[in-house]
Amino acid sequence: MPNRMIYEFGNHTDGDATMRALLGGKGANLAEMSRIGLPVPPGFTITTEMCLDYYRAGKRIQPKLKAAIRTAIQHVEEQLNRKFNDATHPLLFSVRSGARESMPGMMDTILNLGLNDKTVEGFAKVTRNPRFAYDCYRRLIQMYGDVVMGIGSEEEEDPFDKILSKIKTAKGVRFDTELDAEDLKKVIAQFKELIRKEKKCDFPQDVFAQLEGAIGAVFGSWYNERAILYRHKYNIPSDWGTAVNIQSMVFGNFGDTSATGVAFTRNPANGTNEFYGEYLINAQGEDVVAGIRTPHPIAQLAKEMPEAYASLLKIRKTLEEHFKDMQDFEFTVENHHLFMLQTRNGKRTGLAAIRIALDMLQEKLIDQKTALLRIPAESIATLLVPIFDAKGKKSATCIAKGLPAGPGAACGKVVFTADQAEALAKKGEKVILCRAETSPEDLRGMLVSEGILTSRGGVSSHAALVARQMGKVCVCGVGNLTIQYASKMMTNGTVTLYEGDSISIDGSTGEVFQGAIATAPSEVMQVLNGTMDAKKSDTYRMFHQIMQWSDRYRKLGIRANADTPEQAKTALQLGAEGIGLCRTEHMFFKGHRIDAVREMILADKEAARRKALKKLLPLQQEDFTEIFKAMKGYPVIIRLLDPPLHEFLPHEEGAIRELSKVTGLSVEEIQRRSSALSEQNPMLGHRGCRLGISYPEITEMQATAIFQAAADVIQSGTKVSLEIMIPLVGFVKELEHQVHCIQKIGKKVCEERKLKIPYQIGTMIENPRATVRAAELAKVADFFSFGTNDLTQLTLGISRDDMGKFFRAYTEQEIFTVNPFASIDVDGVGQLVQIAVRHARKIKPKMELGICGEHGGDPRSVEFFHKVGLNYVSCSPNRIPIVRLASAQAALKKA
Amino acid sequence: MPNRMIYEFGNHTDGDATMRALLGGKGANLAEMSRIGLPVPPGFTITTEMCLDYYRAGKRIQPKLKAAIRTAIQHVEEQLNRKFNDATHPLLFSVRSGARESMPGMMDTILNLGLNDKTVEGFAKVTRNPRFAYDCYRRLIQMYGDVVMGIGSEEEEDPFDKILSKIKTAKGVRFDTELDAEDLKKVIAQFKELIRKEKKCDFPQDVFAQLEGAIGAVFGSWYNERAILYRHKYNIPSDWGTAVNIQSMVFGNFGDTSATGVAFTRNPANGTNEFYGEYLINAQGEDVVAGIRTPHPIAQLAKEMPEAYASLLKIRKTLEEHFKDMQDFEFTVENHHLFMLQTRNGKRTGLAAIRIALDMLQEKLIDQKTALLRIPAESIATLLVPIFDAKGKKSATCIAKGLPAGPGAACGKVVFTADQAEALAKKGEKVILCRAETSPEDLRGMLVSEGILTSRGGVSSHAALVARQMGKVCVCGVGNLTIQYASKMMTNGTVTLYEGDSISIDGSTGEVFQGAIATAPSEVMQVLNGTMDAKKSDTYRMFHQIMQWSDRYRKLGIRANADTPEQAKTALQLGAEGIGLCRTEHMFFKGHRIDAVREMILADKEAARRKALKKLLPLQQEDFTEIFKAMKGYPVIIRLLDPPLHEFLPHEEGAIRELSKVTGLSVEEIQRRSSALSEQNPMLGHRGCRLGISYPEITEMQATAIFQAAADVIQSGTKVSLEIMIPLVGFVKELEHQVHCIQKIGKKVCEERKLKIPYQIGTMIENPRATVRAAELAKVADFFSFGTNDLTQLTLGISRDDMGKFFRAYTEQEIFTVNPFASIDVDGVGQLVQIAVRHARKIKPKMELGICGEHGGDPRSVEFFHKVGLNYVSCSPNRIPIVRLASAQAALKKA
Repeated sequence: MPNRMIYEFGNHTDGDATMRALLGGKGANLAEMSRIGLPVPPGFTITTEMCLDYYRAGKRIQPKLKAAIRTAIQHVEEQLNRKFNDATHPLLFSVRSGARESMPGMMDTILNLGLNDKTVEGFAKVTRNPRFAYDCYRRLIQMYGDVVMGIGSEEEEDPFDKILSKIKTAKGVRFDTELDAEDLKKVIAQFKELIRKEKKCDFPQDVFAQLEGAIGAVFGSWYNERAILYRHKYNIPSDWGTAVNIQSMVFGNFGDTSATGVAFTRNPANGTNEFYGEYLINAQGEDVVAGIRTPHPIAQLAKEMPEAYASLLKIRKTLEEHFKDMQDFEFTVENHHLFMLQTRNGKRTGLAAIRIALDMLQEKLIDQKTALLRIPAESIATLLVPIFDAKGKKSATCIAKGLPAGPGAACGKVVFTADQAEALAKKGEKVILCRAETSPEDLRGMLVSEGILTSRGGVSSHAALVARQMGKVCVCGVGNLTIQYASKMMTNGTVTLYEGDSISIDGSTGEVFQGAIATAPSEVMQVLNGTMDAKKSDTYRMFHQIMQWSDRYRKLGIRANADTPEQAKTALQLGAEGIGLCRTEHMFFKGHRIDAVREMILADKEAARRKALKKLLPLQQEDFTEIFKAMKGYPVIIRLLDPPLHEFLPHEEGAIRELSKVTGLSVEEIQRRSSALSEQNPMLGHRGCRLGISYPEITEMQATAIFQAAADVIQSGTKVSLEIMIPLVGFVKELEHQVHCIQKIGKKVCEERKLKIPYQIGTMIENPRATVRAAELAKVADFFSFGTNDLTQLTLGISRDDMGKFFRAYTEQEIFTVNPFASIDVDGVGQLVQIAVRHARKIKPKMELGICGEHGGDPRSVEFFHKVGLNYVSCSPNRIPIVRLASAQAALKKA
Repeated sequence: MPNRMIYEFGNHTDGDATMRALLGGKGANLAEMSRIGLPVPPGFTITTEMCLDYYRAGKRIQPKLKAAIRTAIQHVEEQLNRKFNDATHPLLFSVRSGARESMPGMMDTILNLGLNDKTVEGFAKVTRNPRFAYDCYRRLIQMYGDVVMGIGSEEEEDPFDKILSKIKTAKGVRFDTELDAEDLKKVIAQFKELIRKEKKCDFPQDVFAQLEGAIGAVFGSWYNERAILYRHKYNIPSDWGTAVNIQSMVFGNFGDTSATGVAFTRNPANGTNEFYGEYLINAQGEDVVAGIRTPHPIAQLAKEMPEAYASLLKIRKTLEEHFKDMQDFEFTVENHHLFMLQTRNGKRTGLAAIRIALDMLQEKLIDQKTALLRIPAESIATLLVPIFDAKGKKSATCIAKGLPAGPGAACGKVVFTADQAEALAKKGEKVILCRAETSPEDLRGMLVSEGILTSRGGVSSHAALVARQMGKVCVCGVGNLTIQYASKMMTNGTVTLYEGDSISIDGSTGEVFQGAIATAPSEVMQVLNGTMDAKKSDTYRMFHQIMQWSDRYRKLGIRANADTPEQAKTALQLGAEGIGLCRTEHMFFKGHRIDAVREMILADKEAARRKALKKLLPLQQEDFTEIFKAMKGYPVIIRLLDPPLHEFLPHEEGAIRELSKVTGLSVEEIQRRSSALSEQNPMLGHRGCRLGISYPEITEMQATAIFQAAADVIQSGTKVSLEIMIPLVGFVKELEHQVHCIQKIGKKVCEERKLKIPYQIGTMIENPRATVRAAELAKVADFFSFGTNDLTQLTLGISRDDMGKFFRAYTEQEIFTVNPFASIDVDGVGQLVQIAVRHARKIKPKMELGICGEHGGDPRSVEFFHKVGLNYVSCSPNRIPIVRLASAQAALKKA
């Protein structure tokens, strides 16, 4: 059925779970659930293509779509024997968005659609429940007024809620459920008045107008600010569009025999294989997620509605067996009847993703490869984050306990608003965002917080959901803490914390502590350091398992960007197979090295420069010796001096005076030389191999330090696998010049020390010219290492330091769908990498090709590097486990 | 005969004129002259391959080459019935360098080789001319001591000359020729003593050692500093190497029946078809070129040696008919016998190149295509250089007259040394280098001078030769001016000029004037401006002829980079077919525009920015109107705002205070905003289309100004062919964003003005990403224009502004064989251009592709752009005639 606009589900079902792209995740799974016999209220899905069509047509619903909708409605009417717009027995619909990927809370929903002044009366009669009918009507008007008509602002209290509160206060009641039909009629009248006042028009009585308004609002919400922000964070292309699901209503708010709930087939916070969820009696779906009333844990339903609970347990099993993954589903019990409103693969924390994948493998629901592919590579980081120090935790004051909704340990300053969170985070402060409940408006605040605490809402509240997805530590529903926004404080009655006070939260236990608790290395690091027994740590077991399997499948080698012996040690512990980038200049600031470095830079004659270099030589040699020792014969790539020299000179007066004392040069002279060295565009200036070519004595000193260190270590009985790398080469003659210089020194040291030092000389490929001259360079170089940081700057013509000025505009305009410095620009920079790889392999089919830019630690980029056939990636030591998994996944995906 | 090391010429000749690469120009032509029966003393040529071999072997002459040399010597001995190293009738040789391209004066020569204490006596006897024999011997020792043994320095007077002078002074004579055999024996003894003292060894008495030393010195001179400098200037690869020519000596210094001379088959200064040259009686070749004695004009030889002169006239004809080009040849008359020592295509001034090519075409020596290819494209510039204003010249004081050796008009300050020339030129001063004679050491001074004046030496002296090649104005042999280096002055007895005084020289007439004479536009420009009758100007006739033929053959369109109506007008006059680049920001500094520009830049809110833009709108519109009018319907590419905004802000305190008054912002506020706008790497910063995307109101203003201007001009009845160009695009969405913005404005203006404005929107291709995404960009853009300036900076990762810090090292190391910003880096940047062209043409086979970087005016780059199939090149207006010819040549070469 190509190009159809609408797919139905119910007695007759058109779609299935494979059609996510066209029907959205929700629509596809509604269809799938219908197919496998689960109780789904009938309805239909308007395709994502119609969303794009809507925008193409200038935000208009085309007549042919309107016609198709009417037909689909008729089919539902026939199944349910009720009629839309029927004054005696009206059929009501929900209208929900549904994108290919779930974007929870990002887009809009309207319930109870089809009620108007006439149908509500029929509905009251036929349900024999006027209170219920008018409650539905007031909900419709409120949602419609908000979502479709745009009444209310993000800054102020919702004007509909204000009316509701006023009437409750006047009556002296607390909950909506305490209002009767007559009260609700008053509410409705005032709601309608509000709309008339605000919008100079009435709430539409034409139910088809209601429907089209709602559909337009859902399509429109695809481009609301929240949705755009969300898509950027999760790299969802805007041209996917959203589908619209129009489904016959079932009512969890029909009375005490009704309920609505959200459940997970397993614990999404820590992955435990247990039924997990919550529900509210006499409520509609949105009430649970909004966190307004704290819902009951799902287990309690066994007592309150034993039949419904039994059905849920059965469905839980069916869902997992059918979908082979943890499901997050919504259900409604209408008058003892259970209905399924949605199911999807449940969002989970990194920890949960890991445990669920490993458990399901053990349960034979999935195979090993699937298990590995199920674990987002980034989630390995959660196994490595610091935990609270056991002693520190013991001596701290636990002031409250909530639900453990996002595992991990977080400390920070208490903030109560997203604005404040952003403001402090900008200053480099760690913050914990504390809210009664969260809403999508809090998203940007959550993004910058270390952890989130809510006083209301359960484990499937908005806060918990989003925190889990972001990998944030989260404790929710901390009932004994009262938050008072106005006075910027929260209290458990005894202890009161004000904005800016320190707090610690443990998202694995739900504990909340006053003050900052010291952290300890993760259990994994403790085992690797030998300070914990491997058998005692379940975290380590999982880590080890995943790494072992990853190493089995991956083709890419993994190296570390490490500049010190300490980093080298950590890198080896985490599985590095060598150093891909040792930046010699990163050791320049150790001890008094910088004095000699500065003396060398300020030298105006070669002789003076050589004198300073002579001082630097033993220091550099010592650094290299330690690194070679630490690496125990694994390959080490040492890159020669790269940054422009002026980067090492001081700019503050005090430091310049200090330098004047050390060097004997006058302050004025230092300033003069410093300014002579300054550059218009340092990124494109006198740096990289250009330094070693203008001042061969620098290369000579570095080569001498390297070879002598290697000789020392070899003679002490440790193997050295040495690779020397020349930065910023664009012309083959640059490479030849430096190679010649290094070989000369190498020969000299070998002769002096009477031993052989095996070594290779290679080059960074980091300017575009090098990529197109790769064949020529490959004839001279033993290896290449792509420096994708600089290659990105040059290929895009964008300075990372200066990008801030237009990055926001570029993100808003979707020119950048990802930050090209975080994840490689496959279409641009990637093309040049491919050209270079192709040329190099033509000359030397087995040439060692690697990458040592920041992108080496990014799973998406790693997949690309695997595809183009690099030999290894090199990344920060702490990213190594992530990259081990990511490269295994790349290999599995390709196969 | 592959891989032979030596090629002989004489009775038996191995080589010919086609073998320049292997035998060098001199060797190939010696062989060719032998072949066509001209009187060439027999000898042989060691190939250029042996030069490379010499370096590969660590500067050693290999034994197999030594053996081959001995065999070749035997063959010469057999022909001449004399023997090398024969004490009774010794055979002597000259040893000369000879590269593929002539490098006059750059490398070394040794004459009279084969003399030693024994053979000189035999030589004296057999020639019956002891004075002559000892003169030859002292010349050998002097040359050998200088060239092979390295005695003497560039700074001081030659120590051999010092000895010679002393002995002349002691004897009270002025010329060498006045010394007799006994004097010369004294000279010889002292020369040998000098060598012994300086080098702790003797002048070699073994003639084979002499020969090998001389060969090594010639090979070695390939890498002397002068030769390297020369190769860089003329883009001669160092891996060509030089050949060595070893030829039996003939003697122009045998007495008054002997002479040596240099002649050109036509006038190399202005191209006139006349026999041109000069000679010295009783001299060796080097004496003529060195300019020590002023030689006689060639015509005088008709009287002094009528037979030899008649032979020369015959040879002149033979040479031109055989080589089909103007020849520069050396001859020697030994005792009334004429010998040819060298011939080559004569170096000539641009003007001469033009005239000779056109004349030879008329004489049917060559065809039209050959004529066009014979004219270096750059030489067209000589037809366009300003000339002395007729009135100014009349009222100026002519203080002397010399030989017109390099046509043109030059004014500048008198300097007497290369150092001083460089020092003043660095400060931006124009200088005229005045020397008694010039030597290769003066090269760098000549390079930076406007013109060269010598008091000694003829039209084939070093000064004249080099000046012609460099296209410098030159007057030589100004006998009535005496130059006194010590007191830094020169005088004609009446008028004295000191260093720093102004002087004017006319290289077309030989006149020297005191003071600076005003210049007038070239005759060509006067004709084009309508202030001179075309028929009166021979220069214009030639210009017009070449342009007409060029336009017949060229395939590339020619446009101008023009930012003002004046430039547009000049461009059209010189043959532009449109504007390839109109930089809107170049008009920002006109009138009070900059105030509004700065106000716009300093605006912190969109509203304030819009207010300032509103002021700018009518000003920009006026600029565009004028340009459209000037261009009369030819295409005009207007580029939107490109530079980073901070470039327009003032940095000096006074200007900031001024701006504070104009804008009402405090000085501190201006400084604060200015510093907020500053960037680490402006080249990679907030510029190009990034501006128009962050501030769409800027693009809107510029588009409005453009379209309203176009509408005005169209409505006034002039056609407008409008192309709008978006700078620095890397992502297709950038392009789409700006295209959308421009189209919106275009539609609005067309509706308001009720007319159609045809226009195209294109993009610069100036960052590497754009080159690899060209296919995608071509779908959106109507045209591309390569911005090779920025493309070079980004592809090479080199900032043009900062390159100075390593440019020298890169030139010395031959990493740059040409300045990549002057002539396109074909292998790097060129590759990316080709990729982009290929991709674009796949999408739109007829897409308009052009180039508007500085390279558009460079003939070598133009050839590349022709090859890759661009539609047009755009360059500075004054380069247009050059590029018209260059593109015709590119087309002719390819065909």
